[in-house]
Amino acid sequence: MAKKETAPYKIYLTENELPTSWYNLRADMKTKPAPLLHPGTLQPLKFEDMQPIFCDELIKQELDNETQFIPIPEPVMDFYKMYRPSPLVHAEFLEKLLDTPAKIYYKFEGNNTSGSHKLNSAIAQAYYAKAQGLKGVTTETGAGQWGTALSMACSYFDLDCKVYMVKVSYEQKPFRREVMRTYGANVTPSPSMDTEVGRRINAEHPGTTGSLGCAISEAVEVAVSTPGYRYELGSVLNQVLLHQSIIGLETKAACDKYGIVPDIIIGCAGGGSNLGGLIAPFMGEKLRGEKDYRIIAVEPASCPSFTRGKYVYDFADTGKVCPMAKMYTLGHDFIPSANHAGGLRYHGMSPVLSELYHEGLMEARSYEQTAVFDAAVQFARVEGILPAPESAHAIKGAIDEALKCKETGEEKIIIFGLTGTGYFDLVAYQKYNDGEMSDYIPTDEDLAKGFASIPDIGL
Amino acid sequence: MAKKETAPYKIYLTENELPTSWYNLRADMKTKPAPLLHPGTLQPLKFEDMQPIFCDELIKQELDNETQFIPIPEPVMDFYKMYRPSPLVHAEFLEKLLDTPAKIYYKFEGNNTSGSHKLNSAIAQAYYAKAQGLKGVTTETGAGQWGTALSMACSYFDLDCKVYMVKVSYEQKPFRREVMRTYGANVTPSPSMDTEVGRRINAEHPGTTGSLGCAISEAVEVAVSTPGYRYELGSVLNQVLLHQSIIGLETKAACDKYGIVPDIIIGCAGGGSNLGGLIAPFMGEKLRGEKDYRIIAVEPASCPSFTRGKYVYDFADTGKVCPMAKMYTLGHDFIPSANHAGGLRYHGMSPVLSELYHEGLMEARSYEQTAVFDAAVQFARVEGILPAPESAHAIKGAIDEALKCKETGEEKIIIFGLTGTGYFDLVAYQKYNDGEMSDYIPTDEDLAKGFASIPDIGL
Repeated sequence: MAKKETAPYKIYLTENELPTSWYNLRADMKTKPAPLLHPGTLQPLKFEDMQPIFCDELIKQELDNETQFIPIPEPVMDFYKMYRPSPLVHAEFLEKLLDTPAKIYYKFEGNNTSGSHKLNSAIAQAYYAKAQGLKGVTTETGAGQWGTALSMACSYFDLDCKVYMVKVSYEQKPFRREVMRTYGANVTPSPSMDTEVGRRINAEHPGTTGSLGCAISEAVEVAVSTPGYRYELGSVLNQVLLHQSIIGLETKAACDKYGIVPDIIIGCAGGGSNLGGLIAPFMGEKLRGEKDYRIIAVEPASCPSFTRGKYVYDFADTGKVCPMAKMYTLGHDFIPSANHAGGLRYHGMSPVLSELYHEGLMEARSYEQTAVFDAAVQFARVEGILPAPESAHAIKGAIDEALKCKETGEEKIIIFGLTGTGYFDLVAYQKYNDGEMSDYIPTDEDLAKGFASIPDIGL
Repeated sequence: MAKKETAPYKIYLTENELPTSWYNLRADMKTKPAPLLHPGTLQPLKFEDMQPIFCDELIKQELDNETQFIPIPEPVMDFYKMYRPSPLVHAEFLEKLLDTPAKIYYKFEGNNTSGSHKLNSAIAQAYYAKAQGLKGVTTETGAGQWGTALSMACSYFDLDCKVYMVKVSYEQKPFRREVMRTYGANVTPSPSMDTEVGRRINAEHPGTTGSLGCAISEAVEVAVSTPGYRYELGSVLNQVLLHQSIIGLETKAACDKYGIVPDIIIGCAGGGSNLGGLIAPFMGEKLRGEKDYRIIAVEPASCPSFTRGKYVYDFADTGKVCPMAKMYTLGHDFIPSANHAGGLRYHGMSPVLSELYHEGLMEARSYEQTAVFDAAVQFARVEGILPAPESAHAIKGAIDEALKCKETGEEKIIIFGLTGTGYFDLVAYQKYNDGEMSDYIPTDEDLAKGFASIPDIGL
């Protein structure tokens, strides 16, 4: 191999080096991820089953386990260039602080107004809705990252965007709400009185502050019952991982350009959209037997779907309006302890990643949140970026691996995903700064309650 | 001239194209900016006069009207590479929206955790404090951009950072406060009971929510009375414009690389740090008679120091603890109407820019804030970045010029400075979204009250 140029501190690919197709990891998986099941019939969902809910082209992508590369439509490429490529940064200030022989790089996805990688799939999903001639889309949002991303994407394509925002977040995170409104979205606190399911939940639980499961149910009901609308989702689904492969493809291209060959790739894992995207082309090489990498998923100890969950069919949502997915799950009734700050609170995990983990192709570990915020602040002070609490899980994982290298003297190359910024998570940082942050690891009894909600369908 | 490569949507200079010196515009000014005066003696401030307040090297820069280029110290260059170069972006989506033949570019300084260009001078000032062996620095902050930038810079160099934050902001902008605390700064609501001036103001005005003038007084008192501390300021001063020249130098280098020759350069103007930095090398060419550019300062109609102020000596701060500066001023007692959102609320203007404006080398105009927020939202929805209210003044200026081109059919090239993001300004956006934003143009009587506070020293 020809000697490569020395990599700069931040690697930005040039426009003609940018990926022009998404990479569909499923095409290279020997065992495909288990299909979504219809909860009534327990049969794999077919195109027609999903059509009332999702855009046609997105259903095709959801079901396509064969096509390796799917071209990125021109209008999506146009939008990508507004905030992509994202930089692959050599974290030399962090290396110096840790005094480690390891080389640490991070792919930073936070330099856009949605503040995270969510925009990569939001713009694709909005595009396909527009291309299908739809009038608008619905979705739910908890903390607001996905809702913000979809609002921005819909604004760009002049689509209506109805966001059901978990009521407690709507009230406690007014700034996220205002960003969405600024981009023209209609943001409704959930449960609302606009939907049947919302009215029912409000009647059954007066004064409830809502949940993601309930917000999903409302968004799906509105999508299905409003002509010209569909529902869009920001994680877990195969189509989302497909779009997020742009993260990994850019990372791989930057590595190849400068001859960087990672030993370890680390990402935080909630529903799996970022991790699945980051690792896609690397995992592809691993699946095809071309190269080997250690791949590590990092999750919160308070929501440990990989490390303590079961690999079975479960409902994708608390409200049981969505299909069933085979995945690592804590049970659809599982809710992380109230002291858990930030995202990564989904009870399950992407079916693609679940299958790969099940086959032993990747590792997983969990951290308690105080340790995660320690890592976040350590990173922020030397690398200058205030990370999202979710991203800080990956930072903590990278720091731990770099410190192991310090002990062994190994010069391993570590890449981690810095998914977003923490500008809207300052209530959590304040708790940390005030010494009021606490940890909670669910007991086996806590987990047993969640597991009890998993339907026994013998799969 | 050889034909240049076509510019990409975003121009990022490579590491070896980055400026390695700051450009001191004063060296090319025939009439130098008027010196700061000692308020007691009315004599120009000398090095020794400033030594108790500012770092030695920064005083030298403040007084140096001759050296054209000042090398950027290596540790500052190291820090710059974490968030610089900032991109020069071709706003083609905005052009399309406006249907204008004009070409619009913006230099985006918001991609860092401080959210603005303020970091460019903060890291320089922190470096010189560290190099002088100081223990820490003090400053004041209103909305919090400068305080955040200085906190980040001090954290990097392991310096103490004491920030006096206007009490009303401390209470209403807790998120900015938490970012500063996360970077290890000590943030005190001002007026506090820690300082003589704070105790006096609290006694005279029980329950006061503070002002920038009062916070400056506290920060200066603490700097002067604490061994090993100095005071640092984020705008207005010559040294700040020097450091901010990095904005203009990068812009110029990007333009030269791709053969872009701007006709009009537009920046928002509060104290002048961004505008002075952006225009520096272009104004230098203009001063040396090499090229001509239209340069436009945009300010809020509610704080119109250029467009309605007087060019005289005035106190630099409301509390009259700082020296006097010859500048366009509304009088140091002038306070913008309570409905004014965002920054750009300083009563005066950088002496460098004031002299240039006085000589007719640049233009100025003012806009009311509702029109500015209209422009902000228009821009956000097509270009994807939620701008700071301050930066939106420049957007409005650029849109207006581009619309003029639409009328005349001229293909003018417009460059404007997008100084920062609006992630911490969502209370203002909420007001706008709710239709509750109002405008207020000070009457001549309002201005007369401010003018009355200007000391009559016959200069």
